[in-house]
Amino acid sequence: MSSADHLDDDCIFCKIIRVEIPSFKVFEDGKTFAFMDINPIASGHSLVIPKFHSANLYETPDEWVAVTATAIRRLAWAVEKTLEPAGVSIVQANGPGAKQSVHHLHMHVIPRGIDDDLMMSWELVPGDTDAIGELVERIKANLD
Amino acid sequence: MSSADHLDDDCIFCKIIRVEIPSFKVFEDGKTFAFMDINPIASGHSLVIPKFHSANLYETPDEWVAVTATAIRRLAWAVEKTLEPAGVSIVQANGPGAKQSVHHLHMHVIPRGIDDDLMMSWELVPGDTDAIGELVERIKANLD
Repeated sequence: MSSADHLDDDCIFCKIIRVEIPSFKVFEDGKTFAFMDINPIASGHSLVIPKFHSANLYETPDEWVAVTATAIRRLAWAVEKTLEPAGVSIVQANGPGAKQSVHHLHMHVIPRGIDDDLMMSWELVPGDTDAIGELVERIKANLD
Repeated sequence: MSSADHLDDDCIFCKIIRVEIPSFKVFEDGKTFAFMDINPIASGHSLVIPKFHSANLYETPDEWVAVTATAIRRLAWAVEKTLEPAGVSIVQANGPGAKQSVHHLHMHVIPRGIDDDLMMSWELVPGDTDAIGELVERIKANLD
């Protein structure tokens, strides 16, 4: 079964996986796709999504949760090596209380600064795409 | 190889796994241990740790990241069914910028309220252990 069988026609993240919408891709493999968040709350803010459409963590089969989590480790390590931030938080949101904005499982890599006072949920504000485009090349160069 | 081979003598979370320190356990299996956070930032705040000592996400082998993530799904779903919060955030912290407090990989389940204004990192404030003790029984009753 190809990954296309697990995707949804109308989901923005499924469209990114199918390259119907452009993205700043960091890497992909048969089961996951990693890319930069275009509404970053910190430099290096990036995402992993599984090539399986499901609305949230609860609805995602274990095997897809597992591959998404191991991909987030790979992405976080590349971000860590590239930016050497004071910390990295991994965040995954479910439901309106967590301000989940896209109903396709996604895990965020968020570089942290000491006393950066980031909120657990945030408003979407577009970032500088030139800066994101330069940064993604540096992160890709640090992939294991 | 037993899980004890992967634990550290001085780590507080390894001691919880070995039951040398008491905890409000939700479940455990051969590879993971889920329990209530005794410094909760929301009712239902709970954790999953792998039965493998590693300082952070980067140092954790993929197989242990995978089992921790699938266990967090199981825990989050039980919390969701028990409390029916407006949302649930999954958070995992690495390094001082993320205010990582224990150097053993752990993933938080954090029930969310609309506009609860939770921070991505937080100070540790002890919760009401009687309330946590009552709640853990309700959550355990909702485990799949």
